[in-house]
Amino acid sequence: MNKYSKIIEVKGHLIDSLVLTKIFDRVMDLDGKFEVMKISVGKLKTDESYAKLRVIGKNKTHLSEIMTALHREGATTKTQKNCKTKSALKNMVFPDNFYSTTNNHTAIYHNNKWVDVDNMMMDKCIVVKGNNAKCVPIREVKKGDKVVVGEEGIKVSTPERPREGMNVFQFMGSGSSSERPTQHIARKVAEDIINTKKKRGKIVLVGGPAIVHTGAADAVAKMIKTGHINAVLAGNALAVHDVEYATLGTSLGMKVKDGTLAVRGHRNHMDAINSVFKAGSLKKMVQQKKLRRGIMYECVKKNIPFVLAGSLRDDGPLPDVITDIAEAQREYKKVLKDASMVIMVSTMLHSIATGNMLPANVKVIVIDINQPTVTKLMDRGTWQALGIVSDVGAFLPMVANQIGGKK
Amino acid sequence: MNKYSKIIEVKGHLIDSLVLTKIFDRVMDLDGKFEVMKISVGKLKTDESYAKLRVIGKNKTHLSEIMTALHREGATTKTQKNCKTKSALKNMVFPDNFYSTTNNHTAIYHNNKWVDVDNMMMDKCIVVKGNNAKCVPIREVKKGDKVVVGEEGIKVSTPERPREGMNVFQFMGSGSSSERPTQHIARKVAEDIINTKKKRGKIVLVGGPAIVHTGAADAVAKMIKTGHINAVLAGNALAVHDVEYATLGTSLGMKVKDGTLAVRGHRNHMDAINSVFKAGSLKKMVQQKKLRRGIMYECVKKNIPFVLAGSLRDDGPLPDVITDIAEAQREYKKVLKDASMVIMVSTMLHSIATGNMLPANVKVIVIDINQPTVTKLMDRGTWQALGIVSDVGAFLPMVANQIGGKK
Amino acid sequence: MNKYSKIIEVKGHLIDSLVLTKIFDRVMDLDGKFEVMKISVGKLKTDESYAKLRVIGKNKTHLSEIMTALHREGATTKTQKNCKTKSALKNMVFPDNFYSTTNNHTAIYHNNKWVDVDNMMMDKCIVVKGNNAKCVPIREVKKGDKVVVGEEGIKVSTPERPREGMNVFQFMGSGSSSERPTQHIARKVAEDIINTKKKRGKIVLVGGPAIVHTGAADAVAKMIKTGHINAVLAGNALAVHDVEYATLGTSLGMKVKDGTLAVRGHRNHMDAINSVFKAGSLKKMVQQKKLRRGIMYECVKKNIPFVLAGSLRDDGPLPDVITDIAEAQREYKKVLKDASMVIMVSTMLHSIATGNMLPANVKVIVIDINQPTVTKLMDRGTWQALGIVSDVGAFLPMVANQIGGKK
Amino acid sequence: MNKYSKIIEVKGHLIDSLVLTKIFDRVMDLDGKFEVMKISVGKLKTDESYAKLRVIGKNKTHLSEIMTALHREGATTKTQKNCKTKSALKNMVFPDNFYSTTNNHTAIYHNNKWVDVDNMMMDKCIVVKGNNAKCVPIREVKKGDKVVVGEEGIKVSTPERPREGMNVFQFMGSGSSSERPTQHIARKVAEDIINTKKKRGKIVLVGGPAIVHTGAADAVAKMIKTGHINAVLAGNALAVHDVEYATLGTSLGMKVKDGTLAVRGHRNHMDAINSVFKAGSLKKMVQQKKLRRGIMYECVKKNIPFVLAGSLRDDGPLPDVITDIAEAQREYKKVLKDASMVIMVSTMLHSIATGNMLPANVKVIVIDINQPTVTKLMDRGTWQALGIVSDVGAFLPMVANQIGGKK
Repeated sequence: MNKYSKIIEVKGHLIDSLVLTKIFDRVMDLDGKFEVMKISVGKLKTDESYAKLRVIGKNKTHLSEIMTALHREGATTKTQKNCKTKSALKNMVFPDNFYSTTNNHTAIYHNNKWVDVDNMMMDKCIVVKGNNAKCVPIREVKKGDKVVVGEEGIKVSTPERPREGMNVFQFMGSGSSSERPTQHIARKVAEDIINTKKKRGKIVLVGGPAIVHTGAADAVAKMIKTGHINAVLAGNALAVHDVEYATLGTSLGMKVKDGTLAVRGHRNHMDAINSVFKAGSLKKMVQQKKLRRGIMYECVKKNIPFVLAGSLRDDGPLPDVITDIAEAQREYKKVLKDASMVIMVSTMLHSIATGNMLPANVKVIVIDINQPTVTKLMDRGTWQALGIVSDVGAFLPMVANQIGGKK
Repeated sequence: MNKYSKIIEVKGHLIDSLVLTKIFDRVMDLDGKFEVMKISVGKLKTDESYAKLRVIGKNKTHLSEIMTALHREGATTKTQKNCKTKSALKNMVFPDNFYSTTNNHTAIYHNNKWVDVDNMMMDKCIVVKGNNAKCVPIREVKKGDKVVVGEEGIKVSTPERPREGMNVFQFMGSGSSSERPTQHIARKVAEDIINTKKKRGKIVLVGGPAIVHTGAADAVAKMIKTGHINAVLAGNALAVHDVEYATLGTSLGMKVKDGTLAVRGHRNHMDAINSVFKAGSLKKMVQQKKLRRGIMYECVKKNIPFVLAGSLRDDGPLPDVITDIAEAQREYKKVLKDASMVIMVSTMLHSIATGNMLPANVKVIVIDINQPTVTKLMDRGTWQALGIVSDVGAFLPMVANQIGGKK
Repeated sequence: MNKYSKIIEVKGHLIDSLVLTKIFDRVMDLDGKFEVMKISVGKLKTDESYAKLRVIGKNKTHLSEIMTALHREGATTKTQKNCKTKSALKNMVFPDNFYSTTNNHTAIYHNNKWVDVDNMMMDKCIVVKGNNAKCVPIREVKKGDKVVVGEEGIKVSTPERPREGMNVFQFMGSGSSSERPTQHIARKVAEDIINTKKKRGKIVLVGGPAIVHTGAADAVAKMIKTGHINAVLAGNALAVHDVEYATLGTSLGMKVKDGTLAVRGHRNHMDAINSVFKAGSLKKMVQQKKLRRGIMYECVKKNIPFVLAGSLRDDGPLPDVITDIAEAQREYKKVLKDASMVIMVSTMLHSIATGNMLPANVKVIVIDINQPTVTKLMDRGTWQALGIVSDVGAFLPMVANQIGGKK
Repeated sequence: MNKYSKIIEVKGHLIDSLVLTKIFDRVMDLDGKFEVMKISVGKLKTDESYAKLRVIGKNKTHLSEIMTALHREGATTKTQKNCKTKSALKNMVFPDNFYSTTNNHTAIYHNNKWVDVDNMMMDKCIVVKGNNAKCVPIREVKKGDKVVVGEEGIKVSTPERPREGMNVFQFMGSGSSSERPTQHIARKVAEDIINTKKKRGKIVLVGGPAIVHTGAADAVAKMIKTGHINAVLAGNALAVHDVEYATLGTSLGMKVKDGTLAVRGHRNHMDAINSVFKAGSLKKMVQQKKLRRGIMYECVKKNIPFVLAGSLRDDGPLPDVITDIAEAQREYKKVLKDASMVIMVSTMLHSIATGNMLPANVKVIVIDINQPTVTKLMDRGTWQALGIVSDVGAFLPMVANQIGGKK
């Protein structure tokens, strides 16, 4: 019998969601050993599985290292201890040994019962107040906050892979999108959007200016109008180019209708910026009837939330842009609250930012023509995302056509 | 007055086609000097320009080096000398100092007059027979052939950039395609195809299997049926996947209609290969009514030429595939003869191969989702190509829809 | 008790190698059900696991479909039946319902015992002769050959993930290479090469011309000289540019030493081709002392096998190039026989071709600057490959330096 | 004689810098005509050229449109009129018809003489104060500022292409970097850095976190220490990962020294962030001897300016990060003032932002492994940039080694 061993348990869709594989991997990567004491896989696919393992380390420290890694994968120890907290000694400073969160559903064992952590995001801490626990970013930590430390008394559950009906996530399950029929993928995405709306889910678009440049602005505006997009998260550029297209009919100075270059077209996006400053804001521009179509127009008309986050490369930026990124992050999070589906289009910056703010059970679709962008996003932890490598200017109009007037 | 100098002349659309810029560049890159003696730019854009320069080298060798470089850019010397030839001493061996061709229009000064070289291709030699000159690849050189050597008596003309009407080449003139409206580009490509057919031009498709995987096979089959594609150059994979899709309804084992995986779908492409071997050839398979739709079917039905060139990665390959690549090159060249427009879709191998066989005045459109592929093709000398970075599975159906039944 | 059910068993590293996960996935993807009857995971990581499941279909056909899919993942049924064969009715035609191979280790149940299939490759058939079984491509099938049909009596085993020591495969286990320290990866690759040689393993290089263009030719030549590369598989271009660099000191016409453009440098690669034709072959060129350095020189000197496969885009091609790709495939396979490690550098064509010829237990390292190339190769079934996204011109010299004179 | 015509003049390196080509292009693109009245190209390459053209429009508006386009390319009219200004009616609002700037050197004709515009940047306006003119972004425009309107009285000069000696810009002049010898390019970049320092030029690094992840942090730190980098512009991520590497020896949780995963390594970057908050700032952390090596350490030690600009995807961000991007833009601009060379490494966001702030005559080198990133940056107007597609983790150490201790 090994002196340095501990018994762990895991429950859930262990095999389907690769939890067991990851646990075995971690132990071996860390040069530990394990014995399987009991394993019962759900008799039917809807059943949960259960596993009990003895994990063996070389010495106390080694064992504790392994246990730390396993907790993160969802393992719990039989004799559950309460999680520990320490007080923050200053504003915006975590106590040492703070627990750093994942974007998976997390519960803490507190006062001898499991408490779900609210507002899960990646790479934050957990603050306990009374019987509640909340995921909190470093800049919002206040002196005296009780912050969870160590890895004990924490339970993480990886979401199951979605298998409900024949949705696009299942369709794309294996292989790369660049070898799948584009028209069919577009149809599946449209169906998923329609189904999400049927269940009154909230759909958030995160979009970059390529939506306008590639000629997909009309498709997106229509999806907002018909209620299939319920919030827009973007930066300055999407709004600027949308206004340029809506007011001057050009995109980067080229007339979209006939493809000729507009005279002094190079200044059109600056002209668009100036026209918003003149009106005071996008909303006022709509009220003054200076902005009569496009993505931003539909957002104002439908009264759906949009947040424009500033970035270092902005021209202007527009008066509507939140130039302080810490504040922009807070506003993004508010909009993302309760989102069922997030569609990320041609913007690595806003997509990665949004990905970090989302709990892992939200459906995410990423559309970009550049494969490394799609790969990078998934590598950064937004692993639940479905990546579609396609031309936005062709793909989004297809999706919008499929949706049509349906709801 | 410099001892080592020579006077050169150039004619044509010197400025518009950057010829003058390149000549100045070459002299400076080679550390030479020049004086502009005369320059007359066409008063109207349709006029030709003329320039006369004195080029100055440090010594005889240096001057000769510079002259060599300038000849290649289209410069001629006043006192034109006949080009020189040497006999090939063996089959498949050029004489030393052979002239290596560009894909631009080329003439040689032979028996005191200019003779156009037939069948221009890149990186070949010129063989003179009587009063004729022909561009010939190394493996077709026969012992005794008179091969042009040195750089004297050779005149190269760079084609003008196309400016006829508002075609897609002009539309795309500047900037990158990934920031242009996709639907508009598709419309322009469709117009160019229609206009080319109106002038009874020959349109050749060079395509890879992604046409089938991404769901664009129906669009291409339709364009063949309506006479908008007049020849198909491809490899084994396009034909195999086209037959798989046509006979089994799957692409890489996935049912295209509903996106589910076919049972034993992994073997479907091998089954498709076997079915062609069983019939004997694609043509026989059509005759035996075993192949009733798709790209290869339409080629056989319309009786248009198709060449399938073997490649090292082929499964099978099909009996129709020419496994000897030297022979496949010859067959490709026959089909490309007199082509007005070549559309290259998602295949770097066949596109670069075709690019090397084409004179520079043939219109080339390259469509691929991977930007480096498009860039690489243009870097390799097919500079006249128009590169479109888009999703083939979305782009080609758009083009086909735009063309519709029109002719 | 369900009428349409069957009991399957699987053995091996079920969880570590994801076999169990895949089996559950397949059943669910095909809308079947399962019950876990027994599962025993090896107590220690070196132990094999065992699972017994009841698989349930809606009807006989459905069940048989599911069973077909599970056989492919390594499941066997308790009451093992002999595999079935049918005779090929013609040369180069499989019988209907032929079994299409994977690149995993495969055995057939023949005459009541398990027989290993020799020479495993992807997408071929299995021919049985006496008590032996061999993997055979379609063009080598002869009339009368007994070809395995259906999926019964076939057992496939997925190789374990390598865990021996701290090798580069383990190091790179998770995450993408573009976020790993390049110098460290190079060191690990060097260590793996050295260790492979210590065990007298055979290392094969599959390389494209970028090796020369990016300035890595000296590094590769050195690795051949010191015995760390034991065979070279390539195309015409690598050899042509290697000879250009070795004889004229240029790469694509640019002097590598000082970065200036050589006079008439554009014809240097044609000159290199001509010099090989003149000598008769690369070997003769070395014997005639016309070729005195470089990759091809070292191959000839060390007397190691090299195969140059023709491709449609070849200039020339060199006399050493096998222009018939069916023959080139056969020569590639001969060289790959018994390879322990294959290093694929900057050539999608030859890499995919080689990947298809390799059994899954051979270590494969793919190095390319273009991420989609790396991804594509792995998607095509060479899943065991380790992908490194780096600049070949910087990476290979690092590896060569690390190896140094060591052996 | 055409009623709607005007005579324009241009001076400078007309042909070498493509100015004349662009002017002819613009006239033809806009469907105008032109006659060349006089053209004199510098007899020697150092001489300026001069051209005089009559430009002909269909009517007054058409002619004026053409003239507008030509002014932007550097054309002036003989009878130079003073430029016009209008007062801004509100803070942060341009007057209608404002002139939108390029990043090229610009002068305005004001009070009958040419006045150079200070602080040139792209897409801004020009404010005139007394006899001075200054380029000003929209948010800095104050009510009453005299802003230049229209296109008259403005002269733009495109910088000459650099030809001084054999520098890396000349070396890379044509072709794509991915087919050039990497080691040689690295040597050339090193030489350019050394030469720039010899002339006491200021070198600014714009860098992303991949510098740390790919293992190039030591090389960059060394270049700061030896005085070859004189300012650092970055975001939160570079600093966070640099601190993680410097204090914990890991990059994204992996021990750089031996490639093993650190226990709880996933929280290391959050730990690094917390350690900076604890110290109060990066500078204080150095003073408290908590930060003893790395890029940020060397910046503090050498007392060179660094600006960390916030972005929406930041974790933390660090207390040193400027979270308001309008302020960050101002700080970036201060640092970029008088820069001779800017090296942009693996960060599209900061590179494009910086590109927009730079006058066109500053040397820019962009290094990234992803070709589309490099292309995108150049397409956005930073056309003078030299793009190098390589692996940063291999390339920068090569450059640093080449520089060595030299100065």
